[in-house]
Amino acid sequence: MFASRGLLRSSRRLVGGISSATRTYVNLSKPSTSVAVLELDRAPVNSLSKEMADAVSAAIKEAEGDDKVQALVLKSSNPKIFSAGLDITEMNNPEVERLEDFWRSIQDLFLTLYGSRLSTVAAIEGHSPAGGCLLAMSCDYRVMTEGENFKIGLNETKLGIAAPYWLKDLFVKTIGNREAELGLGLGKLYSPSEALSVNLIDEVVKNEDVLEVAMKEAETWAKIPPKGRVASKVMLRSEMMDELREKKELDVGWFRDFIMEEGTQKGIDAYLKSLGGKK
Amino acid sequence: MFASRGLLRSSRRLVGGISSATRTYVNLSKPSTSVAVLELDRAPVNSLSKEMADAVSAAIKEAEGDDKVQALVLKSSNPKIFSAGLDITEMNNPEVERLEDFWRSIQDLFLTLYGSRLSTVAAIEGHSPAGGCLLAMSCDYRVMTEGENFKIGLNETKLGIAAPYWLKDLFVKTIGNREAELGLGLGKLYSPSEALSVNLIDEVVKNEDVLEVAMKEAETWAKIPPKGRVASKVMLRSEMMDELREKKELDVGWFRDFIMEEGTQKGIDAYLKSLGGKK
Amino acid sequence: MFASRGLLRSSRRLVGGISSATRTYVNLSKPSTSVAVLELDRAPVNSLSKEMADAVSAAIKEAEGDDKVQALVLKSSNPKIFSAGLDITEMNNPEVERLEDFWRSIQDLFLTLYGSRLSTVAAIEGHSPAGGCLLAMSCDYRVMTEGENFKIGLNETKLGIAAPYWLKDLFVKTIGNREAELGLGLGKLYSPSEALSVNLIDEVVKNEDVLEVAMKEAETWAKIPPKGRVASKVMLRSEMMDELREKKELDVGWFRDFIMEEGTQKGIDAYLKSLGGKK
Repeated sequence: MFASRGLLRSSRRLVGGISSATRTYVNLSKPSTSVAVLELDRAPVNSLSKEMADAVSAAIKEAEGDDKVQALVLKSSNPKIFSAGLDITEMNNPEVERLEDFWRSIQDLFLTLYGSRLSTVAAIEGHSPAGGCLLAMSCDYRVMTEGENFKIGLNETKLGIAAPYWLKDLFVKTIGNREAELGLGLGKLYSPSEALSVNLIDEVVKNEDVLEVAMKEAETWAKIPPKGRVASKVMLRSEMMDELREKKELDVGWFRDFIMEEGTQKGIDAYLKSLGGKK
Repeated sequence: MFASRGLLRSSRRLVGGISSATRTYVNLSKPSTSVAVLELDRAPVNSLSKEMADAVSAAIKEAEGDDKVQALVLKSSNPKIFSAGLDITEMNNPEVERLEDFWRSIQDLFLTLYGSRLSTVAAIEGHSPAGGCLLAMSCDYRVMTEGENFKIGLNETKLGIAAPYWLKDLFVKTIGNREAELGLGLGKLYSPSEALSVNLIDEVVKNEDVLEVAMKEAETWAKIPPKGRVASKVMLRSEMMDELREKKELDVGWFRDFIMEEGTQKGIDAYLKSLGGKK
Repeated sequence: MFASRGLLRSSRRLVGGISSATRTYVNLSKPSTSVAVLELDRAPVNSLSKEMADAVSAAIKEAEGDDKVQALVLKSSNPKIFSAGLDITEMNNPEVERLEDFWRSIQDLFLTLYGSRLSTVAAIEGHSPAGGCLLAMSCDYRVMTEGENFKIGLNETKLGIAAPYWLKDLFVKTIGNREAELGLGLGKLYSPSEALSVNLIDEVVKNEDVLEVAMKEAETWAKIPPKGRVASKVMLRSEMMDELREKKELDVGWFRDFIMEEGTQKGIDAYLKSLGGKK
């Protein structure tokens, strides 16, 4: 489970200012003075369990703790999957308390990443559905690999569930209300070129260039004086974040009730069985 | 007045689950298990009188009453006009009570169509100005015929009146704030290709293909599990609908006062005279 | 300081209905019955001091005072700079009271222009950064000169400051939330073709045609019956304007505190020194 193919693990050892304490699920490195790299590393598909979400949140905060760091690149250790989204086993016949805590961790991850003082760039080298798309949309900039087989989008509807209201809001803010209606209603997964055409991502490049382009973009953002940059980001994002902070427990309740419904559980069960040994 | 050229009338007789009671102004049919077709059929131009608005609302609710139906195609019996919009005779020297009731019927039609649990597809085979554009924008998807002479848009401004605030909101949600400023300010009527380029419609096809493409699109939406699809639609649309429900009588008052103003009445009078025998 | 190269000065003398009282900083003329032209004329770069802002506001109100006037073209006496934005000397080691009054004048200018009953067209013949972009975005239509060296955008972030919240709102309303995030975060200055592609401007034409095209556009808007046109404009813009009117003194406080911070003053000082004799 705790894969360690982490491309950047060696550079992580060289990091000063950023702790190199034993870490699971993520690898944090600092290839340049002002840019840190956070590698998602939970095999096989970077699905977001409670622990994975907590680890990503903690790593973002750790990077923020280094005053010299102004930007963060978010990447995956899996060359074909950025993140497959929420860990569905968290929602399969769960204990209620654990389920609620899981959802709080997902909320916190969103609030931490979307509201980070760092400029954040998603290096999307492969698939990025549902929760993976949430991670990408919570960044300031998105570079995706070419390859029309790779998909990004919010496909919750197709699985019989719905994205939470704040993810819907994030979707609307990213691609506009009209395309969000189509994307959510049809559970649409966009190829890289389709995603680019609706502004779901900002750039499509060759697979081998994704990380390099993302790093360059991060360097560009890191050069902007942080005072006005952060103030602008806060202005653009705080209203939505404040609303979620206020409605947090309400949202936990909605999620819990929705997941615990018999119909939802049957759907998840069927889905897991269909995956068979693939899980 | 009660034209019955209804292309789908014969199939209507075959419908199970959907009542075939005598109906005026609309024809409801069910060419497939999960898709119903609502044909606007008030000669000559499907203008929305109080009775026509009520008939369309009732037909939508009837289609919703069949549990197997998941999608609805909205079409016109007139091959060149989807709907010419509000029936202007309702606003020409009206009795106040009737005028207010007329407006409540228009509000209800919007709330019924925009908030339908069904996925709704507009098959726009011809002109669709003002209230016709309202009907189309209240759907989930819009297929329009090619032919640059056909127009869609909110041209109220050019007639010396203004769209109600909620129609303005719907316009903004569909094409974005900036294009809505241009469209409303100039009372712009868009050709199919122009409408497509600003996302006012989703597809332009040959006239003879409009209904077929709309039916296929409806089948696609009907295949999405309804639970998450409807929840997403509610999330995206309920805020605006709740606001109108709250402000309904206020909006009725605004409309009544605006229409009853001497200047507005003079304008309507002049407009009707200019139509001459064409009405 | 009071440059008078005003291209339209001669026609100004011919104006009836619009006073030709001695005016500084702006030239108001009326080349046609329904269209007035307001020329920004504060050498060298039309920067917005308190007095300049007040003069522009007063000229807009004067044009509005003529019942026959329905549209206003906003242009510059400088063929290469529409407006360089706020006068930075207002913010360099200022007296607090003057600083607050300066900001109130900027707020009023925005409210006056953005909420004008006139249809307003910006003829952007050259650079239009920061406060210049604010002026342009407050109009109903924007025509810009070609020439990829000319720039328009909100580059505040790059200068270490942030646009006020209402300017951020105006930016979002003009180009959408996603592009506004990029534009504000990076302090992006757009070339004419870039600005057109994100809808920051509406048209790019040859430099010698900017005024003529703007005039024609103004004539088009002036022909729309004003009742519905103005009602539509109010509907689209009043919420944002009402919010600013409510928060005016709060916004003055934010601006004052931000500008008076030692870090901001140091930045402004350094910036002014870098300009050297160029100021």
